[in-house]
Amino acid sequence: MDTRIPKPYGEAVAPAQTLDRRDFLKQGIKVAGTAVAGGIAGTAALSAQGAEPIGKDFPAWSNTMGKGLSTYGQPSRFEDPVKRYAASGYGTLAPGTGSARSPIEKLEGVITPNGLHYDRSHNGTPDIDPAKHKLLIHGLVKRPLTFSIAELSRYPMVSRICFLECAGNSSGNAVAAEPPQVSAGNVHGLISCADWTGVPLALLLNEAGVEPGGKWLLAEGADSAAMSRSIPIEKAFDDAIVALYQNGERIRPENGYPVRLLLPGWEGNMNVKWLNRIKVTDGPTHTKDETSKYSDPMADGKARQFTFEQGVKSVITRPSGTMTMSGAGLYEITGIAWSGAGRISRVEISLDGGATWRDALLTGQALPKSVVRFRLPWEWNGSPAQLQSRAIDEKGNVQPTRKMYKAENAVDGRFHNNSIVAWGVDADGSIKNVYS
Amino acid sequence: MDTRIPKPYGEAVAPAQTLDRRDFLKQGIKVAGTAVAGGIAGTAALSAQGAEPIGKDFPAWSNTMGKGLSTYGQPSRFEDPVKRYAASGYGTLAPGTGSARSPIEKLEGVITPNGLHYDRSHNGTPDIDPAKHKLLIHGLVKRPLTFSIAELSRYPMVSRICFLECAGNSSGNAVAAEPPQVSAGNVHGLISCADWTGVPLALLLNEAGVEPGGKWLLAEGADSAAMSRSIPIEKAFDDAIVALYQNGERIRPENGYPVRLLLPGWEGNMNVKWLNRIKVTDGPTHTKDETSKYSDPMADGKARQFTFEQGVKSVITRPSGTMTMSGAGLYEITGIAWSGAGRISRVEISLDGGATWRDALLTGQALPKSVVRFRLPWEWNGSPAQLQSRAIDEKGNVQPTRKMYKAENAVDGRFHNNSIVAWGVDADGSIKNVYS
Repeated sequence: MDTRIPKPYGEAVAPAQTLDRRDFLKQGIKVAGTAVAGGIAGTAALSAQGAEPIGKDFPAWSNTMGKGLSTYGQPSRFEDPVKRYAASGYGTLAPGTGSARSPIEKLEGVITPNGLHYDRSHNGTPDIDPAKHKLLIHGLVKRPLTFSIAELSRYPMVSRICFLECAGNSSGNAVAAEPPQVSAGNVHGLISCADWTGVPLALLLNEAGVEPGGKWLLAEGADSAAMSRSIPIEKAFDDAIVALYQNGERIRPENGYPVRLLLPGWEGNMNVKWLNRIKVTDGPTHTKDETSKYSDPMADGKARQFTFEQGVKSVITRPSGTMTMSGAGLYEITGIAWSGAGRISRVEISLDGGATWRDALLTGQALPKSVVRFRLPWEWNGSPAQLQSRAIDEKGNVQPTRKMYKAENAVDGRFHNNSIVAWGVDADGSIKNVYS
Repeated sequence: MDTRIPKPYGEAVAPAQTLDRRDFLKQGIKVAGTAVAGGIAGTAALSAQGAEPIGKDFPAWSNTMGKGLSTYGQPSRFEDPVKRYAASGYGTLAPGTGSARSPIEKLEGVITPNGLHYDRSHNGTPDIDPAKHKLLIHGLVKRPLTFSIAELSRYPMVSRICFLECAGNSSGNAVAAEPPQVSAGNVHGLISCADWTGVPLALLLNEAGVEPGGKWLLAEGADSAAMSRSIPIEKAFDDAIVALYQNGERIRPENGYPVRLLLPGWEGNMNVKWLNRIKVTDGPTHTKDETSKYSDPMADGKARQFTFEQGVKSVITRPSGTMTMSGAGLYEITGIAWSGAGRISRVEISLDGGATWRDALLTGQALPKSVVRFRLPWEWNGSPAQLQSRAIDEKGNVQPTRKMYKAENAVDGRFHNNSIVAWGVDADGSIKNVYS
């Protein structure tokens, strides 16, 4: 057996990671080395054939001309089951009110393809003509301005990869008495990550000239729900973007076409889609969307009206609930982690329900306020196990347990649930959502 | 006017960048500062209204319920013109033989959305059933193995953002006597960038056990062209990936579904799509695809059979050929740069046909063997100008001039043209492709 070390493992370790590279490489070799006799034998040895394919056995696609060129590609027809989980909150009465969650357990890497980015809408997706849409900046400014999309496109832009997460993500695990036995994406799929491009909001506010009394912003969407939220003006001068592009192309309709607000690391709802106006104010506007909704009832009977930053969080996406493991052997545990506070510095994995922890490998680049992918090879011996992941960010924030979340929040509290997710593996290989 | 500095500019400067942050910030303020009286006045002042929208003027999309939730999203109907440029090499005789180029002048950021990733195919796109597809590893190995897609999916994976570029990209500018007056994507759009995930090829070769005499690989596709290329085995133990996912979801059919070889930084053609087998050999196989095609005739009458690494390169995508500038004022010059040798360390811009150069800002993260986005605000005074960009990578490679490329290559040489791209701006604002 060739013992040369695959370089991607070494390179993939993020600089911020405390994991010792050499230790991982040793471990990597061990996994690969034992694999032939152990778990992966279940993969490779069973399928060893030792023969080259024979002409008459070639499948049709190797003997006939393929499909012609296309101008806008689509997934293979065999990937049809890979879809968003769309759930309308009010059924047929308001089919656009609800959410479409990313099937995170079927996805890989860090970027969410545009067709599968999660979507939470309050009155459907408007069909906006970009030639007729304008962004108004007014209120406590020296001169109110409107910007057409063509005008916005003239300004200097920035690009950054960052996540968006709905405040209601993982609410099923927060409120259900028994853990819902659905897929990971069905519970935790209101998280996605894309390469966003647009104009720094600060540039546009500078054009309008903020008056000294301007301390907050009101951002309002052009949808018929007129979704609107209050935002401290400091965020605008930190990293807020008036975004026009999502993964290279114009933003998708359900994600705010032709223009949305992007507040990196802050709760999804504040990243106002179909952005229609920004009003500079002296305080929060207390809109319907931040009083009747998106406020957090706490255990002590009070409520938090504003929770801006999304907490540090992680989910193991494979193996995960509703999947079945096909016998003992080597598996890769993988998942995603993110934090509104900045970079993910470490993700720990427990295989025994939280008793002991070990570091996962972060692959790809651990960018700030972005999803990062973690991985850990796992030789499953066929006994029951309980998998958990715990993320830690560069500010030292640690993902809390579900018990900690429940102790702090009201009985029916369901927002901002960033608590540890646990998957129970039975001896028969079935995997269940469990509360740890 | 608020003089607070938008932070994204400071943060966006790549660590490897030699540009002085403070200088850029000063420049940034100056641009924003003069903009109100100068260029951007053409944008903002003209559109200043100072009035809030009035109810009766609301467009239909603000007064009616929007479209319902969808399970797989598509671009807005207003983005219909944003398509790949599909050009079949042999017309209707072989509609799948040719290329579909990315419309790079309409895209932003670094990630190419899957629907617009470039595609070069030799006999169309096969419609492969992943349940029936297998990857064979044989030749100089201890035990030949086949892997189903399900089996491959059990192995530890890696994710990385990296570019793919066809060896024939920019060939129009290499051979045409007069510069073709088409869009940037039409000439230079055989470049795309995605977040790829898959199994390190080294792991799979270790499973099969490479014999001491194994020095090269033959990689062959399952398409009916049986596209095949020879690859030095060192690349497998460096960073080669047997890729299953593209931007999070399974690879698109035209990009190799269900599995392709990914050789980061190497010419696109070698990244064999629909990967069917890898044979370990003692030398190159000299396939039809590396003898009759994909070899470079040189000026001295000899030819280079193998050119693995893609050269350091950049293209200004906006403003670019076939566009028209709407009068003097502030514009952002932006484009993409990449290098098969590693990270882009610097991109320089000339506004005067190569006489003088200044550093552009790299926004986002300058990842190795990835596309990076560069930007430079430009106050156009309305006089004729010639825009060029010149990329430099971390190994010190400098993008050559077209004259240097032509001097080295045969008269009809068209591959691996990484020479500097020039756009001529006329006083009327029209932009032409020019040879500098």
